[in-house]
Amino acid sequence: MQRKSLKIVTIGGGSTYTPELIDGFIKRYDELPITEMWLVDVEEGKNKLEIVGKLAQRMWNASPYRVKVHCTLDRKAALKDADFVTTQFRVGQLEARIKDERIPFSYGLLGQETNGAGGIFKALRTIPVIIEIIEDMMALCPNAWLINFTNPSGMVTEAILRYTRWRRVIGLCNVPVNAMMKEPQSIDATLSELTYKFAGLNHFHWHRVFDHNGDDVTAKIIDAMYNNRDTGIPANIHKVPFLREQLDRMNLLPCGYHRYYYRQEETLKRGIEEYQTTGTRAEKVQQMEAELLALYQDQTLSTKPELLSQRGGLYYSESACEAISAIYNNKHSHIVVSTRNDGAVADLDDDCAVEVSCFIGAAGALPIAFGRLAPAERGWLQLMKNMELCICEAAVTGDYGLALQAFIMNPLIPGGETAKRVIDELFIAHRKYLPRFAEAIARLEGTEIKDPIARRLSV
Amino acid sequence: MQRKSLKIVTIGGGSTYTPELIDGFIKRYDELPITEMWLVDVEEGKNKLEIVGKLAQRMWNASPYRVKVHCTLDRKAALKDADFVTTQFRVGQLEARIKDERIPFSYGLLGQETNGAGGIFKALRTIPVIIEIIEDMMALCPNAWLINFTNPSGMVTEAILRYTRWRRVIGLCNVPVNAMMKEPQSIDATLSELTYKFAGLNHFHWHRVFDHNGDDVTAKIIDAMYNNRDTGIPANIHKVPFLREQLDRMNLLPCGYHRYYYRQEETLKRGIEEYQTTGTRAEKVQQMEAELLALYQDQTLSTKPELLSQRGGLYYSESACEAISAIYNNKHSHIVVSTRNDGAVADLDDDCAVEVSCFIGAAGALPIAFGRLAPAERGWLQLMKNMELCICEAAVTGDYGLALQAFIMNPLIPGGETAKRVIDELFIAHRKYLPRFAEAIARLEGTEIKDPIARRLSV
Amino acid sequence: MQRKSLKIVTIGGGSTYTPELIDGFIKRYDELPITEMWLVDVEEGKNKLEIVGKLAQRMWNASPYRVKVHCTLDRKAALKDADFVTTQFRVGQLEARIKDERIPFSYGLLGQETNGAGGIFKALRTIPVIIEIIEDMMALCPNAWLINFTNPSGMVTEAILRYTRWRRVIGLCNVPVNAMMKEPQSIDATLSELTYKFAGLNHFHWHRVFDHNGDDVTAKIIDAMYNNRDTGIPANIHKVPFLREQLDRMNLLPCGYHRYYYRQEETLKRGIEEYQTTGTRAEKVQQMEAELLALYQDQTLSTKPELLSQRGGLYYSESACEAISAIYNNKHSHIVVSTRNDGAVADLDDDCAVEVSCFIGAAGALPIAFGRLAPAERGWLQLMKNMELCICEAAVTGDYGLALQAFIMNPLIPGGETAKRVIDELFIAHRKYLPRFAEAIARLEGTEIKDPIARRLSV
Amino acid sequence: MQRKSLKIVTIGGGSTYTPELIDGFIKRYDELPITEMWLVDVEEGKNKLEIVGKLAQRMWNASPYRVKVHCTLDRKAALKDADFVTTQFRVGQLEARIKDERIPFSYGLLGQETNGAGGIFKALRTIPVIIEIIEDMMALCPNAWLINFTNPSGMVTEAILRYTRWRRVIGLCNVPVNAMMKEPQSIDATLSELTYKFAGLNHFHWHRVFDHNGDDVTAKIIDAMYNNRDTGIPANIHKVPFLREQLDRMNLLPCGYHRYYYRQEETLKRGIEEYQTTGTRAEKVQQMEAELLALYQDQTLSTKPELLSQRGGLYYSESACEAISAIYNNKHSHIVVSTRNDGAVADLDDDCAVEVSCFIGAAGALPIAFGRLAPAERGWLQLMKNMELCICEAAVTGDYGLALQAFIMNPLIPGGETAKRVIDELFIAHRKYLPRFAEAIARLEGTEIKDPIARRLSV
Repeated sequence: MQRKSLKIVTIGGGSTYTPELIDGFIKRYDELPITEMWLVDVEEGKNKLEIVGKLAQRMWNASPYRVKVHCTLDRKAALKDADFVTTQFRVGQLEARIKDERIPFSYGLLGQETNGAGGIFKALRTIPVIIEIIEDMMALCPNAWLINFTNPSGMVTEAILRYTRWRRVIGLCNVPVNAMMKEPQSIDATLSELTYKFAGLNHFHWHRVFDHNGDDVTAKIIDAMYNNRDTGIPANIHKVPFLREQLDRMNLLPCGYHRYYYRQEETLKRGIEEYQTTGTRAEKVQQMEAELLALYQDQTLSTKPELLSQRGGLYYSESACEAISAIYNNKHSHIVVSTRNDGAVADLDDDCAVEVSCFIGAAGALPIAFGRLAPAERGWLQLMKNMELCICEAAVTGDYGLALQAFIMNPLIPGGETAKRVIDELFIAHRKYLPRFAEAIARLEGTEIKDPIARRLSV
Repeated sequence: MQRKSLKIVTIGGGSTYTPELIDGFIKRYDELPITEMWLVDVEEGKNKLEIVGKLAQRMWNASPYRVKVHCTLDRKAALKDADFVTTQFRVGQLEARIKDERIPFSYGLLGQETNGAGGIFKALRTIPVIIEIIEDMMALCPNAWLINFTNPSGMVTEAILRYTRWRRVIGLCNVPVNAMMKEPQSIDATLSELTYKFAGLNHFHWHRVFDHNGDDVTAKIIDAMYNNRDTGIPANIHKVPFLREQLDRMNLLPCGYHRYYYRQEETLKRGIEEYQTTGTRAEKVQQMEAELLALYQDQTLSTKPELLSQRGGLYYSESACEAISAIYNNKHSHIVVSTRNDGAVADLDDDCAVEVSCFIGAAGALPIAFGRLAPAERGWLQLMKNMELCICEAAVTGDYGLALQAFIMNPLIPGGETAKRVIDELFIAHRKYLPRFAEAIARLEGTEIKDPIARRLSV
Repeated sequence: MQRKSLKIVTIGGGSTYTPELIDGFIKRYDELPITEMWLVDVEEGKNKLEIVGKLAQRMWNASPYRVKVHCTLDRKAALKDADFVTTQFRVGQLEARIKDERIPFSYGLLGQETNGAGGIFKALRTIPVIIEIIEDMMALCPNAWLINFTNPSGMVTEAILRYTRWRRVIGLCNVPVNAMMKEPQSIDATLSELTYKFAGLNHFHWHRVFDHNGDDVTAKIIDAMYNNRDTGIPANIHKVPFLREQLDRMNLLPCGYHRYYYRQEETLKRGIEEYQTTGTRAEKVQQMEAELLALYQDQTLSTKPELLSQRGGLYYSESACEAISAIYNNKHSHIVVSTRNDGAVADLDDDCAVEVSCFIGAAGALPIAFGRLAPAERGWLQLMKNMELCICEAAVTGDYGLALQAFIMNPLIPGGETAKRVIDELFIAHRKYLPRFAEAIARLEGTEIKDPIARRLSV
Repeated sequence: MQRKSLKIVTIGGGSTYTPELIDGFIKRYDELPITEMWLVDVEEGKNKLEIVGKLAQRMWNASPYRVKVHCTLDRKAALKDADFVTTQFRVGQLEARIKDERIPFSYGLLGQETNGAGGIFKALRTIPVIIEIIEDMMALCPNAWLINFTNPSGMVTEAILRYTRWRRVIGLCNVPVNAMMKEPQSIDATLSELTYKFAGLNHFHWHRVFDHNGDDVTAKIIDAMYNNRDTGIPANIHKVPFLREQLDRMNLLPCGYHRYYYRQEETLKRGIEEYQTTGTRAEKVQQMEAELLALYQDQTLSTKPELLSQRGGLYYSESACEAISAIYNNKHSHIVVSTRNDGAVADLDDDCAVEVSCFIGAAGALPIAFGRLAPAERGWLQLMKNMELCICEAAVTGDYGLALQAFIMNPLIPGGETAKRVIDELFIAHRKYLPRFAEAIARLEGTEIKDPIARRLSV
């Protein structure tokens, strides 16, 4: 009953993550009989694509399996009859991320890839592109599944569900996997004994854990966390502890990104320090990428290099390959993904995207109904989802006022002159990648921006 | 990490179904290391309990496993430290069911175990008893799971969730299993390839099916149904076909019990015919029970007899044993159960009981979020759930006016004098088992009931 | 600030109700400075329009005010620059209503103008026409208000809100006014002392009443009702009392039309008796109309004749004129109308039409938030609204399967062969007025309808 | 039908506002036949009560009406058989407000009476007291209405609705009245021509305005606001303009307090400047109160002095007296009050308190259903209401963790060490008035608070 062969397409295939994905596919080849992989990238990423593509082919060649790796800048050619499409592209490359980080920090606001001002602009740039990809998929591979890794993964999923008719999409993130890989040990249990219930949004979810007796062991994990047991906090978030009284009261485990909100003061301070000294995350990633690309060019290399695991995407291939296999083999595996809510998070509308515990199979994600959250979590969640809705709509319509509304709502951006200044500067800095805002940006450019953007873009 | 031994308690253990349950446990012994089984019944069922209990012990004795079967009328003694409690009791025995059926039919209304006037009175009798059982469990086995089979299973679950603090409960029914066992063949598929999404209430749910490509194959199964393929309609429902235009429009598979509503005219007519001729379902069951009990007394019998499968509870042990094993072994098996909604059926309140596709594990049922139904199904569903809420509240409070409201709401009971007459006659007929309505019934008994109830209780 | 003059357009102006409307306008002339009235009708109503139009002009001539009455079959000409448009048309005239009543009764089902099978077909015929009227209004009088009286008034409003972009609409009915006119006396109070809160749907609403101390006096009115005080039951509903225990429990006053549901058995029986003997309501109305038209032709008549008040539309002009004046003069008068829910009836979606207590002013209806209903009322309400949604969608799309769904959902129509037979016969009988169902009806006509429709259309 | 006499009780009667209230009652005496007024205060306010009470009596004596003013510290004696109870008390007097303001400002956070850290602590102190008052009212004047002015008025109403069974309460505020008094002139209209729809929470609501044609004129008022027309911004909020693009997009008028959020940066800066220089608002009020009390002691004064209008409570008596009259006379006047939602603001739960346009009559507030808000407003609103729910629950339970959650959620308080420091310092500073937190505060006092609170309490 299964299809004989599988065609995988990776958009943003020139990413240095790609070898991890190849590694995952090789390990699961018995579950996923891939015959061809297409790595797609844009002109600006051509060089990376070539280097990465060659390594990918060497990796497959070194495996027992015959898989042809195609590298192309022609997205349509790649998508034709694809079975699975994974997306890991970055509109504007790391240069754009550097602006997302450095411009806000230069004004004392958080610049981060998926949170604060930076996250909003990443969404504004990415959403129109993902919609174009969907349009191509509708025409060229209507039965394919889209496994999205491009950040902000939740808003990308939201935009697809809300502004296109495509439903074969799953938004992935490695944050929940991290938690599930580390937490069980912290209470001397194994993952298979436990039941995880995640609910929330991408990079803004909470979870609760139950043991083999059905007892809630969330408080035990919280306790372990404060006793220095590793509970899977992503490497790229400053290790500021949550306030214990807060977590005890919640009886939920927050995700690492909640630090930006629950410990806003300290994470902002650390971010500004890095901005002023060692450089922001994007700059570090840029440097790491250069090192990785250098390694990748070693023609004798045919395995995933160790250095890659420091890149921040731990379990990235775990998530992606497991999700693809779960769909292909109708496995109903528990994976936490961004998908249509349908009531799973009862505090949000049915038709929006949420990130929740799902059982993934041939029909896609079956989200687990979590019920309602307590008022504290509910308030945060409803704010964030509504902010996301403003951003998605602004990304599609090019509505400046709505983008401004999102800025002012964002808990990491105090409303006022600075917010206005930062949004305007980011609009101007990214104008090349924001064609739908062309008119609004033209108006802004008429107004004087005193400090040159350039200055704040380097340490 | 697993418990060393398992104590199972079955309330209503004298039921002729019990051998099926034993058979299921024997087949799954490697998953469920049972050491003792306690069959509990009431004084009126003492004789049956003895017969059934002896057969149960012979069945275990004939198996490779050493399990002691205890028979008792002392519920508290049995519940002490139980791991799993299954409930299959019938308040008032089959005599009460006969009244539930014959009194309404004598007035031209549907008398049925879980639908119409009969279903309402079964709920009114059963709910106070299940609440007493829960009180015992809170004291004697607070970590046990209750697997309820007693009808009306959905309202029993609703009452537990709403009027007690007990959460370790799963309401089971074999109707969904039937569908999943039969339908795949009707479209030349296997169950493991398909994805089932059930949503609704006990005996009032719909489902949609997806194939290994993620495509909706509901219409294919509807088509098969009209081409005489077996799609798992329960044996005890008259085979009146649904109106095809309706099903095509719904693109959902109804459950067998929907016939009482979608083909109300014909099912009522058939029921009245049986009432007037061969006897109602309860009377047939009574006869079958006598035959079964005669068989069970054969001291050489140590296996489940073939005749039992005609009793109507096909896959009964399948559901119960799989649910228990899924909890015990944290299997996350897909089973359709009555559980707290938590948003899974987004058209109903979070805090009510629904019957939906769940993944069952150590933490109980993880319901799959189904989203909203189309207006036609939504309207039916909301009516039925609100009627259930009236019945549950009436059962707990003894509020006659509320029971009357439920009667008038019930789509199978036209509002008016006859409804009033039937509810009053049923109250009087069941007064022994409705202590909370004692005052209301006393008032009724002052009023003249012209025709003797007795007359309508025999063919 | 007020407009100098007012142009009123009445669609279905040939109705024998029109003199009541004129009478109302004359009495309120100081609030509503009308300068021209346009009575619009269709070819089939030309004769009535002429008779009624002449009487209307005589009534204005006998008043102190100079108002020109225009009679026309050209709707567009009439609508041009209208300020208020009232609709009281009947698609297919009384002949269609007779079919709506007699065909269902001939099968033992309720035939009634706004309930049961008849109400469904009246909606199917009327909705496409009202949508055409709205299209004309968008082009010809975009600032006008539509005051709809055409039944089923709630579904007509629902269809306008859901399938057009027009928002200046109010759905009126005289049932709530009746209650408010009669009930206060039944408890020796005056209307101005009391506070009324109505909630529900057109012809399916409940209300609660509070006195000058803020105390709930609903129970007092229920008591008065059972003590033979007049509480405003519409003349055209059989006087079968509600079951007292039900009303006591509800602590809400139902509307007269609830009898069709709460006393379904008796109202159906009475309806069938009339069908078999004196003729259905439509036939009586037809006769009364003939008498009225005979009266209207008396050239000396220049006032509303007494006989009109027996026609069934008591307080019709009261409602219509008060609503128009409340809008024109921004009066914020309390009137019960069909309007967009917006949360007022919290058990229904925001975007649907409900009939609730509103304060009416220049911005239209401000609905009073009623909160949630108790489960019994909620269940009924949700069923009825979802049935309405099916009917409205079917009316617009011509979807036979959806109309069938509505039939089967309808609490007055038991699902089954008879339901199928009646819907098919009604489709064929009304084919001239159901162009959107042309294809479905053509298929039906291929199937044999054994009994000639004609037979059941006369006593 | 009306009661012969009226007893009004004012809790916090020693407030310098009281003369405004008396002035309002005198002006409306024909509507409100008051015979006795009871001014209640606590020991700490005894002196003020005496001064204010004497002026109040002189004011009545100078009027044509015979009203006796009673001053008492015995709340129970005062409440006995009251008809209306108004509350304007301040737990901890202005000294507590000074702490609410100065402690947060000393750490760079907003200290304000109803917003930010200060507002949270005012709620924590006030809610237990209002619940005690309700308990007294239940026993002593169960038919009275409570007209609450004590801030935070919305949370006080929420706590009453959620934690008591009292329903005869209306939460008042003069902010909406201000808008309705000023805005119409800004577009050359009169209030009676316009329709106002307010929705949101106390000090966090938006409104939309319609003209006599039913056209939305919100944009016109926004335009007028940016053209320097007075649109009723309360005197005690810094005049920082909203960002115009935001308001244009919203097409809603925010309330003045939205500045704390939409222009957080600037309002915080201004607040800190005042803290460091001229003193916070509380300190200015304190000074003004001293001046007012000096004036009030002038035995020849028998009218409301002009200076009082600078106190900040413009239209305070307008709101209070109109609300009382509307209830007493069943007027159904449009007033914006805090009341039970019941669906009026469809984005919030039915059972919470909202501040919306209502028609006020004998049965209390009839809230106008506003429907759903756009995502930007919805997100803010849901955050704020859920934060309020945390505060109310914490106030009742004394749960420190929940109060901390509210702090971290508050958009004016960045999560982190400073938030923790400020909440702890406020808990210690207010310990006398927070008996339910006694245990939590005792734990805090064990921890070292380095800087003496005293230092930050004076300029």
